[in-house]
Amino acid sequence: MMAPVEFTNILENVRVALEQDDVDRAKLLLDTLAPARAETTLAEAIGDLDLAEQAELLPQLEWSEAADVLEYLDEDEAAQIAARLRVADLSEMLNEMAPDEAADILLDLDLVQAHAALEAMVESKAALVRPLLKHKDDTAGGRMTTELPILRRWMSVNQAITYLRNRSLDDDDHYYLYVVDRDRELIGVVGLRELIISHPNVTIGTIMNREVIQVTTSTDQRTCAQLISRYELFSLPVVDDAGHLVGVITHDDLVEVIEDEATEDLYAMANVSADSDLDVFSPWPVMVRKRLPWLFLNLCTAFFASFVISRFEATIAEVAILAVFQSIVAGLGGNSGTQTLAIIIRGIALGQLELRQARGTVLREIGLAVFHGICIGVCVGLIAWFWKGIPMLGVVIALAVIGNFVIASIAGTLVPLTLRKLGMDPALASSIFLTATTDSLGFALFLGLATAFLPYLK
Amino acid sequence: MMAPVEFTNILENVRVALEQDDVDRAKLLLDTLAPARAETTLAEAIGDLDLAEQAELLPQLEWSEAADVLEYLDEDEAAQIAARLRVADLSEMLNEMAPDEAADILLDLDLVQAHAALEAMVESKAALVRPLLKHKDDTAGGRMTTELPILRRWMSVNQAITYLRNRSLDDDDHYYLYVVDRDRELIGVVGLRELIISHPNVTIGTIMNREVIQVTTSTDQRTCAQLISRYELFSLPVVDDAGHLVGVITHDDLVEVIEDEATEDLYAMANVSADSDLDVFSPWPVMVRKRLPWLFLNLCTAFFASFVISRFEATIAEVAILAVFQSIVAGLGGNSGTQTLAIIIRGIALGQLELRQARGTVLREIGLAVFHGICIGVCVGLIAWFWKGIPMLGVVIALAVIGNFVIASIAGTLVPLTLRKLGMDPALASSIFLTATTDSLGFALFLGLATAFLPYLK
Repeated sequence: MMAPVEFTNILENVRVALEQDDVDRAKLLLDTLAPARAETTLAEAIGDLDLAEQAELLPQLEWSEAADVLEYLDEDEAAQIAARLRVADLSEMLNEMAPDEAADILLDLDLVQAHAALEAMVESKAALVRPLLKHKDDTAGGRMTTELPILRRWMSVNQAITYLRNRSLDDDDHYYLYVVDRDRELIGVVGLRELIISHPNVTIGTIMNREVIQVTTSTDQRTCAQLISRYELFSLPVVDDAGHLVGVITHDDLVEVIEDEATEDLYAMANVSADSDLDVFSPWPVMVRKRLPWLFLNLCTAFFASFVISRFEATIAEVAILAVFQSIVAGLGGNSGTQTLAIIIRGIALGQLELRQARGTVLREIGLAVFHGICIGVCVGLIAWFWKGIPMLGVVIALAVIGNFVIASIAGTLVPLTLRKLGMDPALASSIFLTATTDSLGFALFLGLATAFLPYLK
Repeated sequence: MMAPVEFTNILENVRVALEQDDVDRAKLLLDTLAPARAETTLAEAIGDLDLAEQAELLPQLEWSEAADVLEYLDEDEAAQIAARLRVADLSEMLNEMAPDEAADILLDLDLVQAHAALEAMVESKAALVRPLLKHKDDTAGGRMTTELPILRRWMSVNQAITYLRNRSLDDDDHYYLYVVDRDRELIGVVGLRELIISHPNVTIGTIMNREVIQVTTSTDQRTCAQLISRYELFSLPVVDDAGHLVGVITHDDLVEVIEDEATEDLYAMANVSADSDLDVFSPWPVMVRKRLPWLFLNLCTAFFASFVISRFEATIAEVAILAVFQSIVAGLGGNSGTQTLAIIIRGIALGQLELRQARGTVLREIGLAVFHGICIGVCVGLIAWFWKGIPMLGVVIALAVIGNFVIASIAGTLVPLTLRKLGMDPALASSIFLTATTDSLGFALFLGLATAFLPYLK
């Protein structure tokens, strides 16, 4: 038994040893941990070194240890290290990795190196990896692993247990065991628990559950995440178009899928490319590629809003204090709409909000916007009135706030729902489109009303 | 085997039957599904009815079916339905629920009703629920269930299997079995797989893993989510302060914890209270309570920014076009800072970013901000110059954009890292504080520079 704190201390010492290039001492320290933990610890410690040091250190470890480190690291980071390794070393490590993790690394390498590494791998392993290379990263096919225990209907519970006992201990943990027919068509599933509590002579066919929640290789990972969460699955089997079992998304990948989807939604809301591989440590060129285009897009919408303001330059030249208040209307509207957007996007992501509920949802958000708009608008209006001593300024700004809240609620609901209806990512560009709307229409509403009531504002 | 489409059709028919109050027909339809799926289907179909209908329908089902429906529903929704049930009916359903789910419902009821329902429960069940009522919802204690299989070191594998076989089939799925000593102190863990592949006469003590990743009842669920994801756990044992095993966070709760954390981060970024119970269908008063206060806070920061602008009213009165461009500087800065914020918050949430890496991260983001600022600033400057024909306007706006990007990168990094250092939720109010900074300083920078170079702008 080991508390997290104690564990962190060992980790710290391993890190120090590695920084001093003392691999032997690091390994000695790691031996104080059980094997399963030692790998993670080693990977954590190595992960803190810089890339060149990592690439130098990895080939000094046992191949299986090095493979564990690569599996533990971020996909980006692992690919960068892999690119620095000799092909012979890399292929040895790939041999020891789970096929899906090996495929992820190969997909991130340049073609020549990937091809060379694949050729140098043990053929039986390469054969498991090759089919994975043709699926997109964010589909079930791209997430699955092809190495899994498979049962047959005619097996007895006892035979199934013997079969499991003979499989390598290095496997991923599988809680569900899938049953296929002679054509490898998926026909059932048995939990390890059923296997344990059933009589040894009973056949798998009689204890298996014939209703298997499954996906095809091309199923989007978002859908996978929703199925996992709705049916509380430990793993999700993947079949090809003919219904043949080709792989499984295991528990660890499930957690990753759910986390990646959440990361992508958060990024999309913040106008960063919805790519869960992007993180704090991503290299500069990646950062720029995922962020700068959105800033340019924002530049366009900002100029559009400016263009709206410029239509009222004459009004502002007469009453300069309008410039003081215009941003409040736009900003509050954007804020209110972002609240709506976040709740809608999360509702879609978690599968709570269906398209047929769209109408009720829009109406509800509009109602809420009117209420919030009145609360905030009246408040803003009173402050503006007393600050500048112009009652009509208060009225104009209050009406503009209420109007912009309603606009924001419609945009915040309809944009993600429409994207969803079109089969697109509901979070994609939702936020930038929303602010473009609340800025432009917010300015137009406020300055338009001000122009109409100009005589009362001076 | 059943494809999702076929399943959806049955679900649709069940829904129609329920709408016609034809419970028998709905149940008949459900019998075409296997038990495990039928419960979910029933819950899905019932979940689409309105609250009054649900409360009326539930007591007509078997208690265990009704319990499954309540477990499946959203916490909020389940609590609202529970509040409408007769205490006698409710307590029968609570008897059939997992203790943690029952506790969640009781915690959401008013005190009198909760007390009555708990009293009316079967005592052996109530005893499991009672300890759960004292933990906060977002801690390990609030998330755990107390009903779990427990092994002892001296048991043989065969005895352990017999013990599991005799436990109720209605249990949650447990992949890890925890081992305790006679004082119920947690001393090891055995996976179902080890149990299956080990010799029947071997004792649990020899096959158990003595290093158990564990948390205490007061551990924050955020930390739990990180441990689960880092160590790819199927479940997480919860001990009290003396190290006694008191419960376990099971697989289905794990997924929920990870999703809830993601929801809370997204909400916090969008200035909605970070409460994962809030969703599209939350009742009005809840919506208002979780959103309106943030709009008022935004109102304050917006007026502060306006106050900054008002200091430059004289400048604007002279050169009204400044009002056209001031929002561009503020908006772009806010956008750039939000990108930084999203990446930092996600990095902290996923446990990738440690506090000791703060300095490097800030410097990196500043560098990136300078680069992005120059790209965007030059662009904005050129457009402004050519649009209005005033070269100095271009220079002033370009410099203001670059400056505001740098300010945004510092705020976007330091605010969440500081909150984290203080042990607070790094996403909490980060976004509103960031925009307050980029707005106020953006306006000050742009209008300040414009005032300094006023002669060249006319």
